[in-house]
Amino acid sequence: MIDILQQRRQKLTELINTPIILWSGKAISRNFKANLYPFRASSHFLYFTGLALENAAILLENGTLTLFIDDPSPDDTLWHGETPTRESIAKQIGADYAYPLAELTNYTAHAATIAVQDPTTYQQQLNRLNRPLYPNNTPETIDLQLINAIITLRLTHDELALTEIRKAIKVAIEAHKMGMRATKTAQTEAEIRGAMEGVIIAQNMTCAYNSIVTVHGEILHNQDYTHNLNPGDLLLADVGAETPLGWASDITRTWPITGQFSPTQRDIYDIVLSAHDRCIEAMKPGVEYRDIHLLACLTIAEGLVNLGILQGNPLDLVEKDAHALFFPHGIGHLLGLDVHDMEDLGDLAGYEAGRTRSDRFGLGYLRLDRPLKSGMIVTIEPGFYQVPAILNNPDFCHKYQGIINWDKLAQFSDVRGIRIEDDVLVTDTGIEVLTADLPTSPDAIETLCQS
Amino acid sequence: MIDILQQRRQKLTELINTPIILWSGKAISRNFKANLYPFRASSHFLYFTGLALENAAILLENGTLTLFIDDPSPDDTLWHGETPTRESIAKQIGADYAYPLAELTNYTAHAATIAVQDPTTYQQQLNRLNRPLYPNNTPETIDLQLINAIITLRLTHDELALTEIRKAIKVAIEAHKMGMRATKTAQTEAEIRGAMEGVIIAQNMTCAYNSIVTVHGEILHNQDYTHNLNPGDLLLADVGAETPLGWASDITRTWPITGQFSPTQRDIYDIVLSAHDRCIEAMKPGVEYRDIHLLACLTIAEGLVNLGILQGNPLDLVEKDAHALFFPHGIGHLLGLDVHDMEDLGDLAGYEAGRTRSDRFGLGYLRLDRPLKSGMIVTIEPGFYQVPAILNNPDFCHKYQGIINWDKLAQFSDVRGIRIEDDVLVTDTGIEVLTADLPTSPDAIETLCQS
Repeated sequence: MIDILQQRRQKLTELINTPIILWSGKAISRNFKANLYPFRASSHFLYFTGLALENAAILLENGTLTLFIDDPSPDDTLWHGETPTRESIAKQIGADYAYPLAELTNYTAHAATIAVQDPTTYQQQLNRLNRPLYPNNTPETIDLQLINAIITLRLTHDELALTEIRKAIKVAIEAHKMGMRATKTAQTEAEIRGAMEGVIIAQNMTCAYNSIVTVHGEILHNQDYTHNLNPGDLLLADVGAETPLGWASDITRTWPITGQFSPTQRDIYDIVLSAHDRCIEAMKPGVEYRDIHLLACLTIAEGLVNLGILQGNPLDLVEKDAHALFFPHGIGHLLGLDVHDMEDLGDLAGYEAGRTRSDRFGLGYLRLDRPLKSGMIVTIEPGFYQVPAILNNPDFCHKYQGIINWDKLAQFSDVRGIRIEDDVLVTDTGIEVLTADLPTSPDAIETLCQS
Repeated sequence: MIDILQQRRQKLTELINTPIILWSGKAISRNFKANLYPFRASSHFLYFTGLALENAAILLENGTLTLFIDDPSPDDTLWHGETPTRESIAKQIGADYAYPLAELTNYTAHAATIAVQDPTTYQQQLNRLNRPLYPNNTPETIDLQLINAIITLRLTHDELALTEIRKAIKVAIEAHKMGMRATKTAQTEAEIRGAMEGVIIAQNMTCAYNSIVTVHGEILHNQDYTHNLNPGDLLLADVGAETPLGWASDITRTWPITGQFSPTQRDIYDIVLSAHDRCIEAMKPGVEYRDIHLLACLTIAEGLVNLGILQGNPLDLVEKDAHALFFPHGIGHLLGLDVHDMEDLGDLAGYEAGRTRSDRFGLGYLRLDRPLKSGMIVTIEPGFYQVPAILNNPDFCHKYQGIINWDKLAQFSDVRGIRIEDDVLVTDTGIEVLTADLPTSPDAIETLCQS
């Protein structure tokens, strides 16, 4: 492991020749000082150290690595047991030097950094460097150079990253299988969530994001788990695991509460699955991810025309963003240390230099617009949703008059939300579906639900 | 429910006659802006509103309640579904007026408040009030008056609070029973944690604090779950649930991995249980909690003298803090909306006016030093630990020379940590053990492990 960490640090210093300081951040108080949210180290820090150290910083300069962290106090030892000393941590991450955190003051001149998420450490960053951090300083600064260098590295994954992500995926797959099995006896969304997250916790992992486990999949970021499960409902579960080193997985499956899709549910499911399959088939290095998104849009539009829900030429419908009435989000995003990898940097990682978000309804939520490259991991997650805020919107009703067959749509009222999401590695020659061990076909899903 | 909330607000305004503003706080970013820690509203806000509203504030003045919160944006509706409007929330909590958050500026003059935990909202509090908040302003200010008034209210629990805490306890008991059952097949601490927390999540609750589930109970705040379970190990599980309205439970049990305590484990377990039972028997209104702590210390000292581990007169041993070599923490704490209730206020809630923490080794970690009062809920959690940082400390070895029989202690090497923790309500006439449905006797624990 230490070899790969050293390679990452070496590559970074080849890309930028100013000193670099990366902070890990601190645990954040929940309702009182001693009751903390589980600590999550900054992803950039994790990438170069491979250790979730709290309240630490590293300096990368002229090929040397210096660690800044305080030794545990006697009280720490009483309450938290023997914890590693600064020296042993330094050895573990391959640091050349190691000092108490206060010493950092002597090394901050001309250093580039990236803002951490926790406000207390962010304030320390401002104080130590005595200047604003990107994006509050001008774009020409060293922070942006550092950000671009880190994006270059983190956009594609080395063996260590891939090994970790495979571990996170394996556990997420087990969680989904457990969720399907639990549906037979569960009465509420919360019970299925408990069964799924229990699997993740049992493997000493954490949820990579707040799980979505709902019979109201049309609420895209639903984090309510109170609904009862009724026959005829579909359950949408978007649940991913994160390894102790911070690497994420991100999987969505949609299954029927009864264990059997209704004919209408199967019709729509097949459209979403077809979009999923065609996107994955089309992926290879050099292909634009935006075109993969548009292929999903086209496939969904075609399918909905075939069912009679949409009327018109599928290509024209996509031009008009009519697909987005039912598929309003993007086809996916980068996956890595963050479930939306490097989204702390805004669109800098997701969007190729010179590109910006579209203001089109059908493209504006696309989180990634780059050509695919070997070593990238992206999600492919088409969906179909009947979102009241969209379908009842008078502007849309006017704009898409004559395009939606409302009577036909009414026949599909038992399909509120379906999404199928896999994690896909781009390889030199094509792709590998990392989540392939969890089936997507409706028959296989039904079998898992009944197992 | 609204009646009790109104009673709470009425009582507060009877205790303090300045305007009061309480902020709820905001969700905190984990690794990027859209990936948030699960939101926890400020306990003081929850106490008076009964709703976990994000980014809201209330003003209490002259018997009226004013709510400040922004209406959901169209994007909120797309991603989060239909969320209640300001007006409907106002109605739900019984507010007389309701305005957008920005309006708060017009109501901040002379208002008292309490600092929230999340740094972003705390900064807003400073900006809006344009002054430092307690404890950074002088002790004579209105903030301290407000704090003391709230402590007066929250120290004892009304029916609504009690109902919620009973719910949290019921789920925590189920989690512990599941943990005991899971031990039969589990290989690691994490697997037992997954089984226990899965129960809490399945009931749509959250963990009230970071669970301790460990075969190294001697590490008092152990949050590592990676150890394998070996025959001969004891598992210490300190796991509590929190209801959606924020009310906590806090339970610890210790059970043998094999389902059967060894004779040495049972000897020590019986001492801890005897301390637990004697403390609970001695509790009633008017009794000093500090004396309950000292009774636990005495019982543990007596038990260790009987086993030959300590030598001397038990009362003298407690005077010398020798009990604290094996029981270094306090007998418990207040329980309510926070698992250490109102610990965000430092020792103001835990310590009766005029009292401060002792610097004695055997008393300094006591979190509560007040006479018991009807309506209080406290934990009773004696323990026995072989903490290397204590037992290998040369100062202690010197100070307690001749008091510890090291050869005898060595016979108990299979007891690294035992704690038994219940939640106890003080009533008008005595007490009620709210967690009584989860047995404490070693025989009953063995039966549960084998069920």
